[in-house]
Parts: sequence; C-alpha cells; structure tokens
Amino acid sequence: MVTPKKMLKYLYLPNLFGTERTKEILHVNPTVIPQREEATNVRTVVYSYNAANIDEHEPKRVESCFRFKDDNRINWINIDGLRKSDVESMASHFGIHALLVEDILSINQRPKMDEVEGVMFCLLNMLYYNEEKRTVETEQISIILGKDFVISFQEDEARDVFNPLRARLKLSNTKIRQRSADYLCYSMLDLIVDNYYLVMEKLGDRIEALEEEIVRNSNTRSLAKINQLKKEMIVLKRNIAPVRDLIGGIIRSESDLLEDRTTKYFKDVYDHIVQAYDLSENYRDMMLSMQDVYINNVNLKTNEVMKVMAIVTCLLAPATVIGGIFGMNFDKIPYLHNQYGFWIAVSIMLIIPIWMITVFRRRGWF
Amino acid sequence: MVTPKKMLKYLYLPNLFGTERTKEILHVNPTVIPQREEATNVRTVVYSYNAANIDEHEPKRVESCFRFKDDNRINWINIDGLRKSDVESMASHFGIHALLVEDILSINQRPKMDEVEGVMFCLLNMLYYNEEKRTVETEQISIILGKDFVISFQEDEARDVFNPLRARLKLSNTKIRQRSADYLCYSMLDLIVDNYYLVMEKLGDRIEALEEEIVRNSNTRSLAKINQLKKEMIVLKRNIAPVRDLIGGIIRSESDLLEDRTTKYFKDVYDHIVQAYDLSENYRDMMLSMQDVYINNVNLKTNEVMKVMAIVTCLLAPATVIGGIFGMNFDKIPYLHNQYGFWIAVSIMLIIPIWMITVFRRRGWF
Amino acid sequence: MVTPKKMLKYLYLPNLFGTERTKEILHVNPTVIPQREEATNVRTVVYSYNAANIDEHEPKRVESCFRFKDDNRINWINIDGLRKSDVESMASHFGIHALLVEDILSINQRPKMDEVEGVMFCLLNMLYYNEEKRTVETEQISIILGKDFVISFQEDEARDVFNPLRARLKLSNTKIRQRSADYLCYSMLDLIVDNYYLVMEKLGDRIEALEEEIVRNSNTRSLAKINQLKKEMIVLKRNIAPVRDLIGGIIRSESDLLEDRTTKYFKDVYDHIVQAYDLSENYRDMMLSMQDVYINNVNLKTNEVMKVMAIVTCLLAPATVIGGIFGMNFDKIPYLHNQYGFWIAVSIMLIIPIWMITVFRRRGWF
Amino acid sequence: MVTPKKMLKYLYLPNLFGTERTKEILHVNPTVIPQREEATNVRTVVYSYNAANIDEHEPKRVESCFRFKDDNRINWINIDGLRKSDVESMASHFGIHALLVEDILSINQRPKMDEVEGVMFCLLNMLYYNEEKRTVETEQISIILGKDFVISFQEDEARDVFNPLRARLKLSNTKIRQRSADYLCYSMLDLIVDNYYLVMEKLGDRIEALEEEIVRNSNTRSLAKINQLKKEMIVLKRNIAPVRDLIGGIIRSESDLLEDRTTKYFKDVYDHIVQAYDLSENYRDMMLSMQDVYINNVNLKTNEVMKVMAIVTCLLAPATVIGGIFGMNFDKIPYLHNQYGFWIAVSIMLIIPIWMITVFRRRGWF
Amino acid sequence: MVTPKKMLKYLYLPNLFGTERTKEILHVNPTVIPQREEATNVRTVVYSYNAANIDEHEPKRVESCFRFKDDNRINWINIDGLRKSDVESMASHFGIHALLVEDILSINQRPKMDEVEGVMFCLLNMLYYNEEKRTVETEQISIILGKDFVISFQEDEARDVFNPLRARLKLSNTKIRQRSADYLCYSMLDLIVDNYYLVMEKLGDRIEALEEEIVRNSNTRSLAKINQLKKEMIVLKRNIAPVRDLIGGIIRSESDLLEDRTTKYFKDVYDHIVQAYDLSENYRDMMLSMQDVYINNVNLKTNEVMKVMAIVTCLLAPATVIGGIFGMNFDKIPYLHNQYGFWIAVSIMLIIPIWMITVFRRRGWF
Repeated sequence: MVTPKKMLKYLYLPNLFGTERTKEILHVNPTVIPQREEATNVRTVVYSYNAANIDEHEPKRVESCFRFKDDNRINWINIDGLRKSDVESMASHFGIHALLVEDILSINQRPKMDEVEGVMFCLLNMLYYNEEKRTVETEQISIILGKDFVISFQEDEARDVFNPLRARLKLSNTKIRQRSADYLCYSMLDLIVDNYYLVMEKLGDRIEALEEEIVRNSNTRSLAKINQLKKEMIVLKRNIAPVRDLIGGIIRSESDLLEDRTTKYFKDVYDHIVQAYDLSENYRDMMLSMQDVYINNVNLKTNEVMKVMAIVTCLLAPATVIGGIFGMNFDKIPYLHNQYGFWIAVSIMLIIPIWMITVFRRRGWF
Repeated sequence: MVTPKKMLKYLYLPNLFGTERTKEILHVNPTVIPQREEATNVRTVVYSYNAANIDEHEPKRVESCFRFKDDNRINWINIDGLRKSDVESMASHFGIHALLVEDILSINQRPKMDEVEGVMFCLLNMLYYNEEKRTVETEQISIILGKDFVISFQEDEARDVFNPLRARLKLSNTKIRQRSADYLCYSMLDLIVDNYYLVMEKLGDRIEALEEEIVRNSNTRSLAKINQLKKEMIVLKRNIAPVRDLIGGIIRSESDLLEDRTTKYFKDVYDHIVQAYDLSENYRDMMLSMQDVYINNVNLKTNEVMKVMAIVTCLLAPATVIGGIFGMNFDKIPYLHNQYGFWIAVSIMLIIPIWMITVFRRRGWF
Repeated sequence: MVTPKKMLKYLYLPNLFGTERTKEILHVNPTVIPQREEATNVRTVVYSYNAANIDEHEPKRVESCFRFKDDNRINWINIDGLRKSDVESMASHFGIHALLVEDILSINQRPKMDEVEGVMFCLLNMLYYNEEKRTVETEQISIILGKDFVISFQEDEARDVFNPLRARLKLSNTKIRQRSADYLCYSMLDLIVDNYYLVMEKLGDRIEALEEEIVRNSNTRSLAKINQLKKEMIVLKRNIAPVRDLIGGIIRSESDLLEDRTTKYFKDVYDHIVQAYDLSENYRDMMLSMQDVYINNVNLKTNEVMKVMAIVTCLLAPATVIGGIFGMNFDKIPYLHNQYGFWIAVSIMLIIPIWMITVFRRRGWF
Repeated sequence: MVTPKKMLKYLYLPNLFGTERTKEILHVNPTVIPQREEATNVRTVVYSYNAANIDEHEPKRVESCFRFKDDNRINWINIDGLRKSDVESMASHFGIHALLVEDILSINQRPKMDEVEGVMFCLLNMLYYNEEKRTVETEQISIILGKDFVISFQEDEARDVFNPLRARLKLSNTKIRQRSADYLCYSMLDLIVDNYYLVMEKLGDRIEALEEEIVRNSNTRSLAKINQLKKEMIVLKRNIAPVRDLIGGIIRSESDLLEDRTTKYFKDVYDHIVQAYDLSENYRDMMLSMQDVYINNVNLKTNEVMKVMAIVTCLLAPATVIGGIFGMNFDKIPYLHNQYGFWIAVSIMLIIPIWMITVFRRRGWF
Repeated sequence: MVTPKKMLKYLYLPNLFGTERTKEILHVNPTVIPQREEATNVRTVVYSYNAANIDEHEPKRVESCFRFKDDNRINWINIDGLRKSDVESMASHFGIHALLVEDILSINQRPKMDEVEGVMFCLLNMLYYNEEKRTVETEQISIILGKDFVISFQEDEARDVFNPLRARLKLSNTKIRQRSADYLCYSMLDLIVDNYYLVMEKLGDRIEALEEEIVRNSNTRSLAKINQLKKEMIVLKRNIAPVRDLIGGIIRSESDLLEDRTTKYFKDVYDHIVQAYDLSENYRDMMLSMQDVYINNVNLKTNEVMKVMAIVTCLLAPATVIGGIFGMNFDKIPYLHNQYGFWIAVSIMLIIPIWMITVFRRRGWF
C-alpha cells in the first residue's frame, strides 16, 4: 500500500510546502540598512536626449555622471548595482535627501513615493516569474525624477523591463523625445506595471493547471501546491497594493515636476494597477474555490472507499452467520441429513446479499 | 458499483469544472494592445437628428462621417468592428486624445470614464448570457460624448442592446429627440445597465435550478456547477462594480457637456446599477448557503449508508458468536443433545438483534 | 428504517428549502416598467386639515383631488392601487417629474429618496410578516412631500400601517395638526420604520424557536429552516439598509420643505433605523452560531452511533475467535474432553469483553 | 453507556444553550413606549454644590427639585425610577424637548447623544455582570447636561456606579468641586465606561475558564457555553460600539456647555472606550480559536476511539479465518492429526496480529 | 497504545495551550490606576547636550533634574522605574497636565499621542521576545517632548532599546547633536519601531518552524502551538495598529514643537510601522493556511488508517465465509471427501482477496 516511492514523496513534502519560501516571505525588515551587500559590479548608462538627438554614454565611474546635471537636455541615468558610496555621491550632487539614500539602499522596503526638496522619489519592485522555482522574484528599483533628469537605481545588472523604452528613445519622432522628464518617468512606471501582468499571467497559468489537476486527481501534493501559490499571491499583493497608492500619490501631488498634459498618462497607469489589484482578488477567490473542491474530492474519495468496504463486509456477514448455524454440533438440526441441505444453505447465503444489494440500490446507496 | 457510464462522468468532470473558462477569466491583460485582431467587417451607422427630423446614413468608409461634425444637428455615429486605422482617423478628426484611442482598442479593459479635452469618454461592457455555454459574455463598448455628437465603438457587428433606442429615435415626439447629446448618452448607458438585469435573471434562474437539484439529489456535479456559477459571478461583479464608479463619476463630473436637467436621469441609472450590485451580493450569499447545503447533504448521505452498514454488521455479530459457541467440539456442551437445542440457539440468535434494535430505536439511532 | 412517512419528508424537502422563494427574492428587475399590472381597484382618501378642523374625502376619481392643491390647508392624498393613468395625471397636476412617475410605477425598486423640482420623493417598502408562508412580504409605498401636501401611493388597498396616524389626525390637539406637511411625512416614515420592528420580532421568535429545536433535536429540516430564515434576512436587510440612507438623505438635504424644528424628529427615525440595522446584524450572527450548533449536533449524533456499533462489533470479535479455536477439528485440543471445557471457553468469551469494557471506560471512550 | 444522569444532561441542554437569553437579546424594540412599567418607587437625590460647600437633599416629590434651577450653584439631580409624569414635569420645567422625554422613557434604546435646545442629552447603559445567571445586565441611564445642572434618570434604585463620585463630591478640594457641570458629566461617563472594564474582566475570566475546560476535556456542554458567551458578547458590543460614537460626538460637538479645558478629559474617556472596543474584538478572536480547538478535540477523540475499534477488529479477523480453515470438515486437512497441530494453528493466530501490530506501528498508525 | 508518557502529554496540554497567557492578554483594564506597584528602584539618567558638547548626569533624586529646564541645552531625562510621587513632581515642574500623569502611571494603556499645553505626549510599548516562555513581552514607555527637552518614563530598569541612540549621542558630528529635541524624539520612536521588526522576526522563525513541523508530522500539539502563536499575534497587533495612528497623529499635528525638516523623518517611521502592520497581516494569513494544512493532515492520517483497517477486514471476510461453508455439518457437502478439497477451499480463500485487491487497485483505492 505504501511503496518506497510513496515514502519518498512524504520526505519530499516539506520541500514542496516550501518552508524556505516562507522564510523569504516573512523575513522582511526594512529598518536594517547594513544587511545589503555592496554590489561587485556597477553599470551606469546615461541617455542624454532632446527632441533633436540622443547620446548614449556608459561612464566607468558614477562621478562621471555629474556633468549631465543642468546641461539643458533630458538625462536618464540608470545605475545597475547598488554601492553605498555611489548612491551617496550621486545624492549629494543631485540634491537628494539623505533619508532617500537610506531608502534606496534598504532591502525589502515597501513601495512608496515621496516628494522631497524638489525631486520626486518612487521606490517599487519589478516582478519576475522564476519558472524553475515557481516563485515571484522581486528587484527593487528607485526612480528619482528631478527637473530635466531621471535617475534610476536597480539591484541587478542582468535584467530589467526597460528595453522597449530604450528602443523607443532611439527613435526621434516618438512622444517620449518631445516631452520632458516626467513623461520618461511615466514610461518607466508604465513598463513596470505592464510587467506585473506578465507575472500574473504565469500565475494564472499555474492556477489553471492546478485546478485541472485537482479536478482530475486530488492528492496530497495539491494542497501543498495551493499553499505555495498562496504564498506567491502574498508577494504579488504586497507589491501591487502599495504601488496603487504610489501612483495615486503622484497624481494627487500637483508637483511642479509634472506637466498638466502628462497627468492623464499617469491616470492610465493608475487604471492598470487598479485592475491588476482587482485581478489578484479574483485569483484569491479562485484559489479558495479550488481548496473547497480539493477537500470535497478527498472526502468523496475516502468516503467511497469506506462505503464499498463497509458494504462488502456487511454483505458477507449473513453468510458467516448461516455457516455458523449449520456448523453447530447439535444432534438435531433440520436439513442436515437432507440431500440438498448444503445447497439450500449456500443458496440462502447468496440470496440474502442479493436481496440486500437490491434494497441498497433502491435507496441509492451505491 | 462504478459502471462505464459513471467512468465517463469522471472523464467529463474537468470539462464540467471548466478550466478553459478559468483561463478566459484569469487571462486579463489590458496593457497589451497588439493582441486585438483587426475587424474584417466594419459597419458604420449614423443617426443625424434634431427635434424636427432624423436621417439614417450608412457610409461605406469611416471617413465619410467627418462631415457630420458641427452640422448643428445631433449625430450618433455607431461603429461596429474595431480597426486601428478607423479609430485613429475618427479620433484625430473629432479631437479625441491618443490615450483614449489606446483604450478603445484595448482588450479586457476595466470599465472607466474620463473627461479629456472637451469630450467625455466611457468604456464599459455589454453583457450577454450564452445559453449554450452557460457563460456570461462581454462585448466592449466605448462611448464618446462630445458637443452635439456621440460616437460609439462596438466589437461585434452581430449584436447590441440599442434596438429600443433606435426605435425611440425614429419617433419625433420622444424626449430623446427634443434633448441634446447628453440625453442620448444617458439612454445608451441606461439600456446597457438594464441589460445587466436580463443577464442576472438568467443567472438567477440557474441558481434556482441548481438549488432545487442540490436539495433533491446532491451529487459530484453539483459542486462543479456551483464553482462554474461562481466564476460567472466574478465576470458579473468585475463589470458591475466599476460601472457604478463610472456613472458616479459622470454625476460628479459637473461637465459642460451635461445639462442640469439630464443629471437626474443619470442618477436614475446610478440607482439601477447600485441595486444590481446589491443583487449580485445576494446571489453570492445564496450560493454560499447552497454550498453549505450541498456539503451537509453529501455528509448526511454517506453517514446514513455507513450507519446502516455498521448497524447490520453489528446486529449479525452476536449470531456469529452463538454459532461459534455451539460449533465448538467440546465433549460436554449443554443442550447439544437436547431435542430443541438448535431452535433455542437460533432463537437466541434472533432475540439478541431484536433486543438491540429496540434499544437502538429508543436511543433514536435510526 | 425509512418509513413511508419519512419518504414523504424527503419529497417535501424541496418545498421546505423554498426554491420558489429563491425565485421571488432573486428576480429583481427595477428597469422593466410594463410588468406592473394595472390595479383593478383604486381607492383615494384625502385628509384635508389645519389646526382648527379636518375633513375626510373619498373621491371616486383621482382627478377630483386636483382641487386640494393650494387650498391653504394641509392635504394628505393617499392612493391605494397603482394605475398608470392616475399616477401620470396626479404627477402632471402636482408638478411631479416624469422620472418619479416611472419610479412610482416600478416593481422591486430599491428604497431611495430624491428632491426634484420642489418636491421631496421617498420610495420604500412597508414590511409585513406572513404567518402562514413564514415570509416577509413587502408593499411598495411612494411618499411625495410638497408644499402643504403629502401624496402617498400604495400597491395594496387591503393593508397599510397608518391607522394610528389616522386616529391621531382626527384629534385636534395633537402635534400633527399644529405642524405642517413635513411633520406628516415624518409621522408616516416613523410608522413604517416602527413596523419593521414588528416584523423583526416575528423573525426573532422564529430564530428562537429554531434554536430550541436544533438544541433539542437537530434533523435534516433544521438546516432547511436556517436557510429559509437566511432568505428572509436578505429581504429584511435589502429593505433596511437603503432606508437608512434614505432618512440620512432627508436629514442632510436642507430642503426648504423641512422646518428646522422637524429635523430632530427625522433624527429620531434615523436612530431607530440604525438600531434596526444593528439588530439584523445580530440576527445574522445568531444564525451562524445556530448553524455551527446544528452541524456539531449532527456530527456528534452520527459519531455516537458509529462508535457504539464499532464497540459492539469489537467486543464480540474475541468471542468469535475463541469459538473458532475450539471449533477446529484437530485431534488434540486441550480441555476438549475436560468436563468444564465448554464453560471455561464461554467464560473466556465473557471475560475478554468485560476486560475490554473496563479498559475502554478508563480511557473515557464511552 | 447512557446513564439516567446523562439523559438528564440532554434534557438540561436547552437550558444551557439559553434560548430564553436569546429572547431577551433579540427582542429589542425601541419604538414601543407604553411597554415600560411605571416605577413603584422613585428616589430623588440632589447634590447642590459650589467650590465652597455642598448640600445633599432628598426631596419626596420630583417637583421639589424645580427650585434648584438657576440658583447659581451646580446641581446634580439624580432620579432613580422612571415615572412618565415625573419625567415630563422635570422636562417642562428644565426646558427639555418632548422627544428626549420619549427617549428617556423608552426601553432597549441604542446609546445616543444629542444636543437639543441648549441641553446635551446622553443615553447609555450601565453594565453589570450577574454572577448567578452568568449574563451581562444593563441599566439604562439618561444624563442631561444643562447650564449649571446635570439631571440623570436611572431605572433601578438598587444599584448604580456613582458611589466613588459621591465620595469625591463631598471633599471640598477635589477638581470636581472647582469645575462646572460639564466636569460632573464627564465624571459620570468616566465611571460608567470604567465599569465596562469590570464586566469585561468577568467575561475574560469565563473565557479563560472555558478555554481550560475545553483543552482538558471537551464535551457537549463546551459548545453550549461558547455560544452562551457569544451572546453576552453581542450585548457587550451593542453597548460599547455606540458609546464610542456618543463620546466622539460630545468631543466634536463644540457645545457652549463644554469648557475647553474639559475636552481633554472627554478624550481620555474616548481612549478608554476605544480600547474596550478593541478588547471586545480580541475576545471574539479568542472565542473563535476556542471553537476550533473544541471541534478539533471532539474529532480527535472520536477518531481515536474509531481507530482503536477498527484496529482490534482488524487484528482479530485473521484468527477467525484460521479457526474457520481448521474447522472445515474435509477428510484430509494437513496437521489435523498432528500432535502439535492445534498449537501450531493457535501460534499462527497470535503471530499474524503481532506482525500486523509491528507493521502498523512502523507506519505510525498508533 | 497510550503509554504513560502519552498520558503525561495530555496532562501537559493545558499548559501548552497556555491559559495563563490568555489571562495576561485578556486582563486589560486601563482605568484602574492604583494597581501599579511603586518601583523599588528608580534610575534617572540625563543627557544634556548641544552641537558642541554633551554631559551625562545620573542624579539620585528626580528633583535634581529640575535644573535642566530652560538651560538652553537639549536635555533627555530618562527615568527607569515608575513612582507616583516622582512622576507628579516632574509633571508639576515641567508643566505636564495631570491627566498625562495618570496615563504615565496606568497599566496596559493603549498606545496614544496627545498634545496638551505645549508638550507632546506619546505613550507606547517596547516589545521584547521572551525566548524561554515564547511570548511577546511589553514595556510601557511614555515620551514627553517639550521645548528643548524630552522626558521618557520606562517601567523596567533592566532593559530598553536605546543603546544605539546613546552611542550616537556621544559622537559630536551626528545629526542628532545638530538638531533640536524633536529629532531626539524621532530617534527614540524609530528605535522602538525598529525593534518591533526584531520581535516579528522571532515570531516569523517560529511560524516557519511550526510550518515545517506540521508538514512533517502534524500532532495534537501543533494546533496548541498555532493557538499560542495566534495569541502572541494579538499582542503584536494590539501594539502595532495604534502606534500607526500615533505616528500619523504626530505628522498631522502641525505642532510648533516639530521643525519642518524633521517631518520627513517621522514619515519614514510611519512607512516602517505601516509595513510592520502589513507584515503582521501576512503572518495571520500564513497561520490560517497552516491551520488548514494541519486539519487536512490529521484527517488524511486518520482516514488512511481507517481505510487500511477496513480493507484488511474486508479482504478477510470472504475467507471466513468459505471456512463457514465447509465447516457446516451437512451430510452431503461436495468435495468434502475429495483428496484435494481442503486445498481447493484454501485456494479460493486466497484467490478472492487477490482478485479484490486487483479490483481495488484499478479503482485507485490504495
């Protein structure tokens, strides 16, 4: 009944339930700054553009970006890899408040926006779906919008979501080239939020696959998988809900950094993030339904087995009794010496269960 | 116990649970524009009217509608079938912002309203109930209210909910002919919301039928059907809740496009959509109750079977023991040589279960 | 075990669960006007009064009420039975907006208030408890408060809740005779809300009776009854919650139709409706607790039966084994030829279950 | 198994579940005034004081209090026992609105505050814990704060919570003697709210005792007790939640009756009532956890019994089979004539269950 | 089956469920002042500093601190140990309102902030995690921010969370030395909130460990532990939720005591406390999932045992019947005298269960 392979499954279960993942999700502490490791590799890319032309620079040292301040062009300085000294020197040159530096360097910070001393600061996470581990991964990004410049700090050099933006920047007739820095900031937020949908689609695929699995064959792993998914939903919601406030905050801020005509673009992003939030609620409802189906299926299956066993046992009980009756050693037992006695007894043994089956069937018991 | 027919049922189950429907509901991504296929067939109908007379035009090309702008009549331009170029040329001629064009062309957009550069924009879904698939289908409609014109974009040429409106338009003494474009816009929203009730009625019929089925005979398919219905409820709620905000937004907008005397009509639509929302909440409560009844019935049924089996087994156990006692091969067993010994033993075998039944009955166990 | 009477119960169940009632509750569609049947019988009663005297008229035709407009007395025109033509002619004479006419004639409308063109309009339901069907019945009433007049439209001639008001009106020294029309309107709303408590008391009696029944003897019908009550609660809540908004709306309206000194009376009604709402929440909590008790009792009962059966079966199993042992046909079986062998075997058959009972008891298993 | 004593318990159950208590809690109808019985005994006590001295009067008739109006001292007129005529004569002399008279005389009124024609009116309940019946009892108190006077109406002469206040009043150097009537009103509310904590402490003790009982030995009465406690929680919450609004209302009222320097004292009471509300939420959570523990324990217990029974039955089944095998009457059965045949058979009967136990144990099944 | 060690476990259970802890959590009464015991040991430490230098004093008597008022330096007076006379003398000298004195001396007070007569008052709890008892412990701290001074009252001399602050104070070039008293107050709140994360991390570790335990081997203690953790969550939430309001209140207060440039620091603390609140919600969700897993595992385990037992019993039943058939004493039983009769019977006894196993396996029943 329990094969070695099955035993292995039980050993494998803790892994499936992902207690390590629990650790990752629960261990959030935005207050401890020194935890962040210094990036070994920092890559700085500057796009300096106006409606007419665009230059791409890749300075070796962060300090080389200082000259892009106030050069009457729009500059996007994107820094991949966080090093305390870099962030601080950038901050002091571009007039970014010390507290924001702390935020940029912090880990597991809650998405937030703030307007401090003439710059607008947004901190949020880009989400990626790790196909292998089946987890939602986050990469923190800080976007600082100043007059004519946008500085963005990312954690990981290897990936981001801005490639479509880079492509569009290089085309001269795009709206992004004609507008000022706030439109660049909008485009970045838009791409980040759009990417949330890609992650949600992957999760949607998993919900769907899991639903089919549960409906077909609910097993012990199913609940484990539901719980795994629930954890990823926590990550999702933890990122989406505050981004809604973040973008709402930008719209309400009435900052001088934002042109009137850009507001409606931010409203568009806001609509998307609200819808993403609604969708994540739908996901949750779907998973609760799935859990109900799972429990129902497990119960039905066990009940079916138990029922069949009880019925078989019950059907054979009369035969045992009859066998016992004619196995008694009384001197005088009717039919004992009759030629067909045995066959009569066996017939009764068969007739009773058949009658019982008929009765049970009529009652709809199986 | 499990007939081939029953096996078939199990194979049919995944379908019943509708994982494809899950896919449709979960895969919402308003950010990806290029997914929309270009309509092969576009049908444009223009109603140009004032209090005195009404003309109906059906131009071949969208561009032919341009002349209806600022002709001192009220024009309703209804375009069935979305083609990117059409929408864009209409937008540029009628002064509709580029972002709205994106919204019009988007798929699975959340219902929303916006007032941009002198036009009021409403995007929402018409709902239809597909009797065959038993699903709620949506058709996106964009309504643009400008000064003296209403432009509406629909996805599907084959169906809409505006026929009563068309009939009323053709009558000269109707309120709609005496009023301006905002009243036309109100009439459209009113018909869309009214149609929600038709869809809800169909769902209500299914809830009712399902309730009766569950009460009569709860089976494995019942939970599947409850879950199916729950999914349709998600579609319903996803459309009703934001439409409430949409119409509330129109009322609060204080737009110049809306005459004071039309406001109370919009309030009337608002009352209807609020009530629709309340009703959908009632539906949800009803279905939760149904799920309780289902689980209760399934448990009662299994318990009843198990109870009867246990009782039968239990009643026959004493007989087995007595049979065993008199089947032992001891030399001296009382009554063994008695003439009525056998009958005494059999009587005891009968008396004990009868006594047990009496006791059990008195305890109310069956 | 299942007597014909019991079978009847199962057939009766669907009725008990009340799927027809579900239909009534779910089929709400305020948008379809033509559904309302024209009343065959219309009864109009006019109370025309001032502080000094009061006249009661019962005109045959609705049009005969027109003369009561602006006669410098306060007039309460109560019309029982809704006929489209009547409502429209009244509306056109007393300056009531066409949309309100639609509301008055609508069915299953959500309670609402509105102030349109100098009249205040309240639409709500009077609730009655039908002792026979055990349902909450509603009768729609529209109250129109104008300068010096109140017009009320009721559906059903046979009943209303205003008799105490009529009695008070006929007394000359009552406050209602000294005050203007807004006080009359307050008195009507007050009586309607007070009547809600009578309905709630009846429901409270049923909850109480049901609780006692469940505690005494939970059976299949209990859950059916809980679900029935839940449905009536939906009716109750659907009427109470929006009436709260309605009266709150009157208080906030700052209408010229309301004298300052009447406001505190409306606040009093508001307190009552808020309390009614709280009470309905308590009812809901109570019923959830009852459902828990029911499920607990059903489980306990089944478990008890199963336990006893299992114990009996288990206690008899050793005796069967011993019977089997001494029933074997080996040549040499100890004690077989002993004079007391049989009695020893039977004693063991008795001693083992007694010992088992002792052990089980010590463990607290029964 | 079911002793007469146990039967008694079942009879006693309905009482335990307290359906009479349900009646008391559910039958709330604030609209019916005539229900209140006239108090047979009315006791009026007047404290007339200023910073310099204090007089205590106990007039026989309520009308004797009239002279305390406007005597340039602060007067606290406390009337125990409600008689319609008394309340009305007090109201007319002290300028209290007729609607407030109705409120004072009403039963089961929701706590509320109002400022009407220059007096501030608070209606709330004092709570007492009845150790015997284990219920929360309420006594309605109406406090009317006017310029230089406080009138309080209580239902029950026998008890109130103001003794500490009376003691402090008699001391000349207390703050209460130096301040005006609003401070007296604050002191009264403060004592009432403080008393809520005493009641909550008693309930807390019961929760605690019940938790211990459930953990030690969950039985049928446990759920009954949880439900009893839940009902008392309804009483508690029904009183605490609106008192929060009441005191919040006083703070926001900006009444002339309240000195600025007294506001912070009311804020203090507000903090206490908010905390009481939070605490009552904690109680609720605790009880939900308790219910989970109860259900878990009941299930574990039943499952354990069933498991042991099933195991015993299962362990004995092979012995029955072996007994049957060697009890067959075939001519040639091996070992039948062997000297040790019997012992071999019995050994197998023992060895198989022992082997089964070993296997089951290894699987962790008992 | 139930060893003495197991019996011990049952006795130990109540302790595990921690009813004493329930007592501690439920017995909250902020209104009873006299309960607080006078501290036997009071330790006062004063840091008197400006940008240039810092002095540390440890006066024997509280009254020695009076001279630090208005000495044109910033003074932090930290008093460990609460004695009524000390608090009152400090209050009267530093102009702290009598009500605040009450708050400082109260026990189990809800976190709150208030601005009274020119000082800002914050009362909250420092949290510690007691590794041994596995509970969250609280220590009440009152912080009074005045012009140029901060007074803090702590309950317990042995511990606080301010050591990093003390270290930073001693360094002359830190921001804290350059700023005024509001920055000191911010730093204290920041450290308190940061410490909440440490406590939450410990709880997170326990949730994680418990999840692993439940997944590996759910036993009776698991639910006890979940309930224990839930209680600590109540303590956590009770402290975090009002601190959010507290800090929000400081930000909104627009007090003269707060410099504009300090506001953003308070906003930073606010972000942290909001995130702590979100995290505690995640903890709660996680624990609800864990409870589901636990119940599922317990059920699966019991069901598995029951299933195996039922299957074994069921498989052996046919053999019993066959044994009975050939054990009957009829004269003519086929095969009885056949040489291989016995072996045929035994073969049938084996073949039937093997066939049954095949069928059951095909059905997926084990």
